[in-house]
Amino acid sequence: MLTAPKHTGWRAKAFEVIFEADTPAGKFFDLALIAAIFLSVLVVMLDSVASIHVRFGVFLRAAEWFFTILFTVEYITRLSCVGRPRKYATSFFGVVDLLAVLPTYVSLIIPGTQYLLVVRVLRTLRIFRILKLGEMMRETSVLRRALYASRRKIFIFFFAVMTLVVIMGSMMYLIEGPASGFNNIPRSIYWAIVTLTTVGYGDISPQTGLGRAFASVVMLLGYSIIAVPSGIITGQIMSESRKGHAISTQACPRCSSEGHDADAAHCKFCGARL
Amino acid sequence: MLTAPKHTGWRAKAFEVIFEADTPAGKFFDLALIAAIFLSVLVVMLDSVASIHVRFGVFLRAAEWFFTILFTVEYITRLSCVGRPRKYATSFFGVVDLLAVLPTYVSLIIPGTQYLLVVRVLRTLRIFRILKLGEMMRETSVLRRALYASRRKIFIFFFAVMTLVVIMGSMMYLIEGPASGFNNIPRSIYWAIVTLTTVGYGDISPQTGLGRAFASVVMLLGYSIIAVPSGIITGQIMSESRKGHAISTQACPRCSSEGHDADAAHCKFCGARL
Amino acid sequence: MLTAPKHTGWRAKAFEVIFEADTPAGKFFDLALIAAIFLSVLVVMLDSVASIHVRFGVFLRAAEWFFTILFTVEYITRLSCVGRPRKYATSFFGVVDLLAVLPTYVSLIIPGTQYLLVVRVLRTLRIFRILKLGEMMRETSVLRRALYASRRKIFIFFFAVMTLVVIMGSMMYLIEGPASGFNNIPRSIYWAIVTLTTVGYGDISPQTGLGRAFASVVMLLGYSIIAVPSGIITGQIMSESRKGHAISTQACPRCSSEGHDADAAHCKFCGARL
Amino acid sequence: MLTAPKHTGWRAKAFEVIFEADTPAGKFFDLALIAAIFLSVLVVMLDSVASIHVRFGVFLRAAEWFFTILFTVEYITRLSCVGRPRKYATSFFGVVDLLAVLPTYVSLIIPGTQYLLVVRVLRTLRIFRILKLGEMMRETSVLRRALYASRRKIFIFFFAVMTLVVIMGSMMYLIEGPASGFNNIPRSIYWAIVTLTTVGYGDISPQTGLGRAFASVVMLLGYSIIAVPSGIITGQIMSESRKGHAISTQACPRCSSEGHDADAAHCKFCGARL
Repeated sequence: MLTAPKHTGWRAKAFEVIFEADTPAGKFFDLALIAAIFLSVLVVMLDSVASIHVRFGVFLRAAEWFFTILFTVEYITRLSCVGRPRKYATSFFGVVDLLAVLPTYVSLIIPGTQYLLVVRVLRTLRIFRILKLGEMMRETSVLRRALYASRRKIFIFFFAVMTLVVIMGSMMYLIEGPASGFNNIPRSIYWAIVTLTTVGYGDISPQTGLGRAFASVVMLLGYSIIAVPSGIITGQIMSESRKGHAISTQACPRCSSEGHDADAAHCKFCGARL
Repeated sequence: MLTAPKHTGWRAKAFEVIFEADTPAGKFFDLALIAAIFLSVLVVMLDSVASIHVRFGVFLRAAEWFFTILFTVEYITRLSCVGRPRKYATSFFGVVDLLAVLPTYVSLIIPGTQYLLVVRVLRTLRIFRILKLGEMMRETSVLRRALYASRRKIFIFFFAVMTLVVIMGSMMYLIEGPASGFNNIPRSIYWAIVTLTTVGYGDISPQTGLGRAFASVVMLLGYSIIAVPSGIITGQIMSESRKGHAISTQACPRCSSEGHDADAAHCKFCGARL
Repeated sequence: MLTAPKHTGWRAKAFEVIFEADTPAGKFFDLALIAAIFLSVLVVMLDSVASIHVRFGVFLRAAEWFFTILFTVEYITRLSCVGRPRKYATSFFGVVDLLAVLPTYVSLIIPGTQYLLVVRVLRTLRIFRILKLGEMMRETSVLRRALYASRRKIFIFFFAVMTLVVIMGSMMYLIEGPASGFNNIPRSIYWAIVTLTTVGYGDISPQTGLGRAFASVVMLLGYSIIAVPSGIITGQIMSESRKGHAISTQACPRCSSEGHDADAAHCKFCGARL
Repeated sequence: MLTAPKHTGWRAKAFEVIFEADTPAGKFFDLALIAAIFLSVLVVMLDSVASIHVRFGVFLRAAEWFFTILFTVEYITRLSCVGRPRKYATSFFGVVDLLAVLPTYVSLIIPGTQYLLVVRVLRTLRIFRILKLGEMMRETSVLRRALYASRRKIFIFFFAVMTLVVIMGSMMYLIEGPASGFNNIPRSIYWAIVTLTTVGYGDISPQTGLGRAFASVVMLLGYSIIAVPSGIITGQIMSESRKGHAISTQACPRCSSEGHDADAAHCKFCGARL
């Protein structure tokens, strides 16, 4: 994806280590990087816990700056050793790499923003690169293609769900009113989403008989339409994996029959060599 | 679906703009209409929030009337430029278009009904018309046919679920009694629905050991029968989409019949070679 | 299923009306019966609501006795006009018909048992008999066969889930202890079921960090294994409905090939008449 | 799996009874063992209930020691009559058998650990051995192979879910803050898991408008991605069970290859007529 640099010397060496995962050095670098990322995310998380912040705040703050500087150096190295820096900087991982260091610097001006550092966890998606030699990539691509192929069905489904949720939320607002916690329409729509998705916090729940009856309808509706995305994606995953494995597109030269298994050497209908 | 008018002049022009989405003017009209609908629904929602109502109530009320008059004009124009006004007035969108303006007028007599205006959101379903040139329509129809084809299985399923819920709710009423919030049978049935659909608000929950044991059975039952509608719809979606794919489009050269399997060598109706 | 009586006269007539749904009189009887059942169940439900009981208690009690006597007469008539009374009395509907009248009589001795009358709702399952002439029966049998064919997989699944739930509940009891509401192991197992099935009442929920971490594992586990029964039943429904519709079991007399469509007249591989 | 002992006399006899389920004695032993395991787990559970512990504590403690000694004797007998004791001791059931007795002895030193005895419930998995002569084993292996074959897809799915949950939890921490119960990032991540899996306890729930809007997105996301594992496992179960059915068991008469489609007329590897 990213072109190798035209430079020689340390830059070529750095490119190989940082951007490739095939050599032992590259693999070790990737593993160390992922460990550092997990550690740095852990530091941010622990720092948000009041009791830990009081006791280890100074140490955690130091660790945060250590990781930020480390990742900043890594980001600059990546920029300087890659063939086309602009392409890297605007790629998905390029943006994530930048976002992974910015919040610490910004937190000097606007306190609190350092928690945005958890975006670093996105960097761990590089883990798939290490595993790419195996089967991992093909599986990921089956999932991704299945989701991509069903994007229109899913869009229609969500549009229908949103319409349903707006209407049901508003009706519940008229039925129950502010006394039961259905203070306004946006809040009632929130309730409708909580109910339809079967999450059911219980922070807002119907108090009148009519409200309960209507809520029951919403629940049973949610219970049945939850089957729709499941059906869409299942169907897609199955036809995707069938496509990739079982059936060859080759036609028999003698009888022109199709649908032969990918490992077939002879036409299964007339016996001619494929 | 709706016949073009016999008139010429502005009516023919208006028909083209309002009812069709193929010309640039028609497409622009549809997009502007959908934007107006979303805006007007937003106005109704915001007006229901007490703090916003206090500060911007007058402005929102004005906006509501503006949209209502706009949609009224649109509705009358539709009625007068369409070929068969009665057919439009009794169609799904004709009824929705009327319901989308009525509540404002009714709210002059019965206050509070203006919240019914959210039914306007149904008008946005026209969005599918703009997208119809693409693949959208075919996907929607796969979903709709799948749901339609499984309507009987879904009816049986719901009948069984309702029977189950009535019996389980009543048993829980006998087991737990009013002390735990199971005041009466309808309320216990509401609890059974909340539990079986895995929504689980927690506003009513068993307090005795026996009640908890019985509730566990209800939950595990809900957990497994949730799989049934999922199975029904998945199966239907898959066979619907298979119908469109795995069947050859080739017609028999002798008897012109269609619907042959992709791997058929001979017409399955008359025996001619395909 | 139930043999016609050897008698003639009113018994033969009564048998035809009560047990068959093909004649207009039989169909009308079934519809009237189902309406009466729904009404009587409604009466029991309403009687359990305190405010309604106070105002209409006498009337509802009278209605309950009216329906009980009506169903008792019907039960006796069924017994006397059917060919083999013992077979009817021990059949599913025979038992349900008896249970549908007993609680009222028992409630004279043990008050409160009249709520068991909701078991009457099971009688409405006769509704499928009225609809049996249509497609209904075939669809029901697809569902039933699918569930029957996957009974072993479902048993294994439930055995595994129960084992999991016992172990996870006990571990949570050790982690959280009585302070957070995890008073004893049975209650913790109840919590594990509430969580694993994604019902999530929230009446018992972890309060410590370790408890929350463990609960997260339970939830994610529940989230993924919910897919298993779904997969089992979907697979079964699909193979059941494929069996019943698409493929004929007839082999080609010339080439012995199988897998022909049910509507095929000629072998699709060699063209011979089937 | 476990080799028969080289010894003769009582050891050979004991091996047959304890390790095999084909003879009447072996079958009876297994059933008695499973009954004893269920009873002993029940004893541990009941002992944890305060009211029962107060009244029957001494009796339950005695029963616990009785079962522990019984299972200890059984464990030692297993060790001494099996052909290769080390292999048994390190097998799954060997470890479970040891863990099933240890906690009682450890509880003499560290009180409270006796509740770990519920791990005994794992021993009941031996039940599948009794049923192995039937269809049970094949079904279990379909489920197990399906889960094994989709392990990579499930790993990718969980990695993606964990990444999502960390980012969404942290954003919610920034949006809501400690006032609504989102005290720190780990707790917010716990909330994100509770919400995404649609468990929805309601112990922590958003209180601000923005928080509710964001939570709605999380719920709808959870609602749709719940379909992904379902799709993965359904697809796998179906292709597993198809493998066993739709493939012909006929071997090619010329090259002896297997795995031909049921509708193949010629060997797909060498072209000979099947």
